[in-house]
Amino acid sequence: MGAAPDKIQKICDRVLRRIEPTQKERVRTIRLANKLVSLLEGELRRRGIQAQVRIEGSVAKDTWLAGENDVDIFALLPKGAPREMFFKVIESAKKIGGRWQVEYAEHPYLRTEIGKYIVEVVPCYKVDSAGEMLSAVDRTPFHTKYVLEHITEREKREVRLLKRFMMGTNCYGAELKIQGFSGYLCELLVLKYRTFRGVVEAASRWSVGEVIDLEGAYSSPDEARELFEGHPLIVIDPIDRNRNVAAAVSKQNFAIFVRACQDFLASPGEKFFFPNKIKHLTDEEIKSIFRRRGTSIFCITFKPPDVVADVLYPQLRKTERSLVAQLSRAGFEVQRSDVWSNGRSVILLELAVAKLPKVKIHVGPPITSGTGEFIKKHLGSKKSFSGPYIDEDGRLVFEIEREKSEAIDVLEEALSKKESFGKHVAKAISEGFKIYQGGQIVRLCRDEDFREFISEYLSHRLSWYR
Amino acid sequence: MGAAPDKIQKICDRVLRRIEPTQKERVRTIRLANKLVSLLEGELRRRGIQAQVRIEGSVAKDTWLAGENDVDIFALLPKGAPREMFFKVIESAKKIGGRWQVEYAEHPYLRTEIGKYIVEVVPCYKVDSAGEMLSAVDRTPFHTKYVLEHITEREKREVRLLKRFMMGTNCYGAELKIQGFSGYLCELLVLKYRTFRGVVEAASRWSVGEVIDLEGAYSSPDEARELFEGHPLIVIDPIDRNRNVAAAVSKQNFAIFVRACQDFLASPGEKFFFPNKIKHLTDEEIKSIFRRRGTSIFCITFKPPDVVADVLYPQLRKTERSLVAQLSRAGFEVQRSDVWSNGRSVILLELAVAKLPKVKIHVGPPITSGTGEFIKKHLGSKKSFSGPYIDEDGRLVFEIEREKSEAIDVLEEALSKKESFGKHVAKAISEGFKIYQGGQIVRLCRDEDFREFISEYLSHRLSWYR
Repeated sequence: MGAAPDKIQKICDRVLRRIEPTQKERVRTIRLANKLVSLLEGELRRRGIQAQVRIEGSVAKDTWLAGENDVDIFALLPKGAPREMFFKVIESAKKIGGRWQVEYAEHPYLRTEIGKYIVEVVPCYKVDSAGEMLSAVDRTPFHTKYVLEHITEREKREVRLLKRFMMGTNCYGAELKIQGFSGYLCELLVLKYRTFRGVVEAASRWSVGEVIDLEGAYSSPDEARELFEGHPLIVIDPIDRNRNVAAAVSKQNFAIFVRACQDFLASPGEKFFFPNKIKHLTDEEIKSIFRRRGTSIFCITFKPPDVVADVLYPQLRKTERSLVAQLSRAGFEVQRSDVWSNGRSVILLELAVAKLPKVKIHVGPPITSGTGEFIKKHLGSKKSFSGPYIDEDGRLVFEIEREKSEAIDVLEEALSKKESFGKHVAKAISEGFKIYQGGQIVRLCRDEDFREFISEYLSHRLSWYR
Repeated sequence: MGAAPDKIQKICDRVLRRIEPTQKERVRTIRLANKLVSLLEGELRRRGIQAQVRIEGSVAKDTWLAGENDVDIFALLPKGAPREMFFKVIESAKKIGGRWQVEYAEHPYLRTEIGKYIVEVVPCYKVDSAGEMLSAVDRTPFHTKYVLEHITEREKREVRLLKRFMMGTNCYGAELKIQGFSGYLCELLVLKYRTFRGVVEAASRWSVGEVIDLEGAYSSPDEARELFEGHPLIVIDPIDRNRNVAAAVSKQNFAIFVRACQDFLASPGEKFFFPNKIKHLTDEEIKSIFRRRGTSIFCITFKPPDVVADVLYPQLRKTERSLVAQLSRAGFEVQRSDVWSNGRSVILLELAVAKLPKVKIHVGPPITSGTGEFIKKHLGSKKSFSGPYIDEDGRLVFEIEREKSEAIDVLEEALSKKESFGKHVAKAISEGFKIYQGGQIVRLCRDEDFREFISEYLSHRLSWYR
């Protein structure tokens, strides 16, 4: 960890020059945001809807990165407002123009593209305190308020550096596709450690179960750990002690960030902020790597169900886990697996071996219990190769016929039963799927985004080592 | 366990008729034993060797089975006698005739075949108490004395039943090839539980760590368990509280005996004493079963080293364990394995899969420790497929090339290094070995004894279910 502070400083300065919005961009963004607020206010007034319209998110907090172009506008409804009001707000929001689309998370909201900007209009309730919140979005105005009350101008630059570092190392984003660090979490980390470098130095020493409690809401880290058991990182929300701001952070992304911090301190570089691009492999390269690995790779493809990414990805992951579990139970070793979705959805499964022997060891009850029907059942069976015998550990054993000795048969049965699959994914699969195997998979690479996915899968490497 | 006592009684009566020596056999055996004692006494006297000659073993205790034809003769030397005296006793014993051979266990002894009889002449020291014993054989006269002082005529019949039951269920014999129950152990069990049926009923309820302490040498079973930790069955030697008479009994044979007792009580039959023979499979049947199992079977064969079975078998087992461990470490799943020795020695290894993919997962240090040379070592290596990346559990991972992806290569390397092999076996292997694979193995069946071994291996079944 011997990098001179100077070197890190120089890198940060160079990075800042690329990520801080220019005065021109700042003016343009804020002008647009204000204009949209006015438009929406006018529209709501015209319809007689009582709602307070505010800019939220990184534009409000002045922590957005150059070129990010995300504008979040919240419409705060009075506490007692009926649910139809949400839809009326969305109807009004359509009038601000752009290529709009209504999305559904916990609540409906409107997403619209205006020029290079992506604008989200989110209706929520205006509550007096965190205790009164009715949904997660009601919390956002409190977050904005907390950050603006505590952050200094200098710290905003540190937040920008941290966000870019998270992006560059692939752990930025609390959405369920990513399971990483949110923008608000980056802001809190800077409020805690004051500088980007401070965050990185602290995080390089983190271990699983790390607790950060800015407002001292708990008397000890262990108290917080008990409440958020199993979370690798616990950052108590300063405006709601019952919430872990880092709840979305997976073990994997936690470890990626910690390792990135360790590696950055040992050998700092701009590549942590701006990694090299993934090299797209050609069809021939992909086929050749498949051959060289010697594994059996299956891609199950189907038409993605019509749901947002935050619904789709957890379901794809759930389906992936179910398939891996069923293959393992049938005796197959799944070496690695992944999911991808764009024009179609893909679940990739890589098996060490796709064909197992017909015979398998089947262990019976221990000697201290009776054999019940165990011996009777298998002794006369045509599917028994041998047994009963007693193995070296004293366990009663039959060698019986494995029901499915080909992985493809296990897969096909699992895909017809769809046990523990994500709900919408199960439905999509029941409408049709294809299984591509080995070299056939390159056919999916007509989609360059899939080619990038498979290229990344095969050369799988932390971004700063690319 | 609902068999009527009558039924068991009838079976026992029928079995006894087959296993109790006839009056004719009794007279013939005892006459021979006495004649040999006289011959040896005369020879020792002629050479001026001071030794007391005695009949020991099951002939002395009158617990031998019809047709067993084993005669044990001990020559007890005075405590102070020099070691050369052992060899002088053996020289004298050669004069009793037959096809003799000198064997070496803890001490040398003479083994000779006279007609249908196998006679062993064992020199030992005559000591006053168990505490003075210099070697295991010195204990034998004390065992004989203890049994003869306690056993009734009726109990001798019960011992014969128990021994035959142990033979029939394949757990009789304390020698290292078998790792089962000795004759003396059978006698003690009958002294404890009075009848064959009593032993069987008690044993059907045994669990691992069972303690039998006839003379109450320990204040509690736990005290004995602590001393003989890991032994599945602990039977305190009445003449030496520091010895477990059942020390040789493996977990496997313990469980076989317990299961046999349970099954016998549930459904008694003569087959527990006299099981059906193993059916010898034809070459074609063996090849067909190999195909049907779908596994990869390897037989490593070599000329057996010139040592007794009690030395050879532990070494074959040790070599087998070492090969299994090395294959497992290399990623191969050994489904089952076994050893055999007759005209040649064979180590059989049955693998689920004999070829693994080239790529394997290689896990690095946890995030709480530095990466040291781990990343540097693999990042530049041509043997890395991908990595470093971080898996779902937060572990640092490289995918690297498996050194040996064919089981045969792992085997050949292990056979050239011979790590953790039995000493004499290692030497024998270094003088030459062959590996037979799959269908080639039938070539070894020109030896009918091997055919029986492989037939038993493939249909592997507790003897009373044959």
